Amino acid sequence: MFLKELESFIEIFTRLPGIGEKSARRIAFYLLRSDKEEAQKLAKSIINLIEKIQFCEICGGFSSEPICEICKDEKRNREILCIVEDPSDIFIIESTQEFNGIYHVLMGALSPLDGIGPENLRLKELEERLKKENIKECFIATNPTLEGDATADYIVRNYSHYPVIFSRLTHGIPTGSTLEFTDKHTLSISIKNRMIIK
Amino acid sequence: MFLKELESFIEIFTRLPGIGEKSARRIAFYLLRSDKEEAQKLAKSIINLIEKIQFCEICGGFSSEPICEICKDEKRNREILCIVEDPSDIFIIESTQEFNGIYHVLMGALSPLDGIGPENLRLKELEERLKKENIKECFIATNPTLEGDATADYIVRNYSHYPVIFSRLTHGIPTGSTLEFTDKHTLSISIKNRMIIK
Repeated sequence: MFLKELESFIEIFTRLPGIGEKSARRIAFYLLRSDKEEAQKLAKSIINLIEKIQFCEICGGFSSEPICEICKDEKRNREILCIVEDPSDIFIIESTQEFNGIYHVLMGALSPLDGIGPENLRLKELEERLKKENIKECFIATNPTLEGDATADYIVRNYSHYPVIFSRLTHGIPTGSTLEFTDKHTLSISIKNRMIIK
Repeated sequence: MFLKELESFIEIFTRLPGIGEKSARRIAFYLLRSDKEEAQKLAKSIINLIEKIQFCEICGGFSSEPICEICKDEKRNREILCIVEDPSDIFIIESTQEFNGIYHVLMGALSPLDGIGPENLRLKELEERLKKENIKECFIATNPTLEGDATADYIVRNYSHYPVIFSRLTHGIPTGSTLEFTDKHTLSISIKNRMIIK
């Protein structure tokens, strides 16, 4: 049994992250059983999302205006710049309510194998900000992966002549976890970087 | 950090089956990073799905025309009528390539607790078909749940004065599960060995 519109729906939906064929099919059947209005709302929410949300001209994060609300917020500490790989990382860091500085999105991480070099990231924009803004600390919050680490190294190596200090997220044992369930690599770093507490 | 269009997207996407807040957020970020065209295709596929697909006037299954291709197919065995709860069950049974009869969708199962009685199902339509069509076997493929079993019992009890035999899927499907989550092989065997129950 073949329904062109259903198959095309499934084909397009399975391109989304985390959606397999079974999930796409279930969603289609759910929509076919629901009010048409429900499906129309869904389609509208997709169009609204991409039409109204853009990249902030300063930090590169998501924004509904040319300059995002964090870059415009005068209460934020403009001396600490948090550097992240992806606009979505801003949401993750904001959700901790632990950081009150401003952001800079690189739009990726260095990955020679994927052909992503320094010129493909927002590094020129970063350097411009180091020149013009009153930044005292670059808090590099790239992912703890090969690519994220290489990107952090690149930034420290190339911009250390600016009068800023560079910091990174600590690596360590996740809260609530145990030594037993921590991978060796994380544990090694955690031991090497152990903190003196008294 | 609050973006109205993003929150509204997430709110609407989490109504879909199997989509939690984290998945919805990931999908939103994926779309925001992709070409606008990709998101437009997605929205279009939703609208196409609900605009073009309707319920077949005879069996109640999904169809892109008033009468579905199975009901129109002269090669199908019109003496065996497979009764299912949901239009999507037809796809599941068709995928086994084990059944060559025709279908009747009840649009649910008896469930007094949810206020679903015989009058809420397509049972009148079923009886009309038993009267008018040359059906010799009613193969009841409702889910092996309390509701599915009660519905099967109801059909056997109320329509046994028609000159048809009634059959059901054999056990093999774990009780309490649904057709949707049954692997094809189990379902194939279950169709091949369906038991005559009255």
